[in-house]
Amino acid sequence: MNYIIGHHKPDLDSVVSALALEYLFLKAPCFKQTKAKAVLASKANLETQTIFKKFKTSLPRVLKSQDIKTTDNFVLVDHNEISQRLKGIKDEMITNIFDHHKVSLNLGSPIFITTKPWGSSSTLVYWLMEITQVKPDKDLSSLMISAILSDTVGLKSPTTTKKDKLVISQLNKVAQLKNLDDLTLEIFKAKSSLKNLTKKEILTKDYKINDFKGKKVFINQIETAEIEALVKDTSSFLNELKTLKKEMKLNYAFCLLTNVLKVNSHVFCLKEDETLLKKAFPLAREVENGVFDLGPIMSRKKEVVPLIERAI
Amino acid sequence: MNYIIGHHKPDLDSVVSALALEYLFLKAPCFKQTKAKAVLASKANLETQTIFKKFKTSLPRVLKSQDIKTTDNFVLVDHNEISQRLKGIKDEMITNIFDHHKVSLNLGSPIFITTKPWGSSSTLVYWLMEITQVKPDKDLSSLMISAILSDTVGLKSPTTTKKDKLVISQLNKVAQLKNLDDLTLEIFKAKSSLKNLTKKEILTKDYKINDFKGKKVFINQIETAEIEALVKDTSSFLNELKTLKKEMKLNYAFCLLTNVLKVNSHVFCLKEDETLLKKAFPLAREVENGVFDLGPIMSRKKEVVPLIERAI
Repeated sequence: MNYIIGHHKPDLDSVVSALALEYLFLKAPCFKQTKAKAVLASKANLETQTIFKKFKTSLPRVLKSQDIKTTDNFVLVDHNEISQRLKGIKDEMITNIFDHHKVSLNLGSPIFITTKPWGSSSTLVYWLMEITQVKPDKDLSSLMISAILSDTVGLKSPTTTKKDKLVISQLNKVAQLKNLDDLTLEIFKAKSSLKNLTKKEILTKDYKINDFKGKKVFINQIETAEIEALVKDTSSFLNELKTLKKEMKLNYAFCLLTNVLKVNSHVFCLKEDETLLKKAFPLAREVENGVFDLGPIMSRKKEVVPLIERAI
Repeated sequence: MNYIIGHHKPDLDSVVSALALEYLFLKAPCFKQTKAKAVLASKANLETQTIFKKFKTSLPRVLKSQDIKTTDNFVLVDHNEISQRLKGIKDEMITNIFDHHKVSLNLGSPIFITTKPWGSSSTLVYWLMEITQVKPDKDLSSLMISAILSDTVGLKSPTTTKKDKLVISQLNKVAQLKNLDDLTLEIFKAKSSLKNLTKKEILTKDYKINDFKGKKVFINQIETAEIEALVKDTSSFLNELKTLKKEMKLNYAFCLLTNVLKVNSHVFCLKEDETLLKKAFPLAREVENGVFDLGPIMSRKKEVVPLIERAI
């Protein structure tokens, strides 16, 4: 079987771009032989569920590691590093990568890779549709607009490019969405809701594990407007983070609390990881034991990961 | 300045694909802002000189490491690994990569990357021309055909794909070359001539340094019909290889002697590197002290590099 799959702990963009690729592969003659089925690396989050329901589209099914066969092939979308991949996908099963993240790869043979420094993977898939003259339908266009808005935090994140803005306006010729600000707010609300989540689920809501010079660095990012409520409970979050660090055999673990409306990030940081945090962010201000205010930071990829990598 | 540059010790495909990209960037509206100048990472070899002369095209100039300014940007073509890059090109200066080799990269930020598992980088550039509806002129088409023939050893190497064959037939509608077999032979002759070369120049004619699990593995490939003459002089080649290994601080050093007409490869191998060679090629037969016959092998990329990487 050929599968198209986003990263572990899928966000809206990774699910939508997988689905959009499935559509593209079906419609574009040059991709006909790449026909493949979109699947999820794990359960869709509330944001994704909400938006798929809104635009009346079924979610792809979850593929389990144990169901992967040695003859299966994979198209990776929205990720390339091994740490973000569903376990069981081996290098030699990957035929294609479409991504908008930095590349950290060491493959055994040449494959099809397309990466673009744009704000979302959906922007990349739209570009593939443009050059192959494939038109997404109304619901898919609406999903793609939502994915771009989600990944670029309403076109306000520093990862936003001209291309993202252009693609949204092209897609909206088909989608005909009246109020993108309202849609953005709806996405934020679903994304940032922490209802019914345990502390562990909050701390692992949208995490990436980076390999920096052989060190495993866990960075979770919670986009939320409920920072005050979380900070009240700092010490039990830090305890949970410590347990997690041991379980996952991490060298460092950080949890960003990003207020997308106020354009600001706080971070939960264990005592033992403070030296690294302070080296990466000399201006960080401790507002509570183990909680630092990083200032007007929104993008993990662009404003956090490179600084921590450099500080290690 | 924006530069387009192939790998160190440029071969025909790396020079032609850089020039073809320069042409594409000038002609395709979507690339207009990427306007860039093709340059060489070091002096063009005899093969490249011969074919550029045949098709009346000037060679790009050589860019020296010391002339690189911190504000310069680079489009890399036909390579991606740092070991194959002109010294002085830093990760943050790279805006684009177009390649047909396996990816071994760890970048600090997302950039434009396109890799395809086709037989040559010129095939990839032709594909970019196809999707942007740019037509190469007659001389450039002839050069691109020559580059594909050179990299795929006359479409006989196992790296050859359907796409390479298709692109040659498309390009030849413009180039109108009558006899591609004769052209292939002409390329081989220029490529394999060892005239006027010192032993050191022969041993470094077309080398790549691979990083396998932290070990620096040098693999040079000489495509030649003069194997007997070289083998006669084995002991002084091995001495020279030993010196080279020390100078370049290598962990392993191999020199392939590939007879493209007979479809066979021999290898110069130092005593101390024999264990690794035998592990990678259990069927290799020692025909002379320090010279092994590997059998019907032509492609370093596909038939040598992966086996040595696995054996380390």
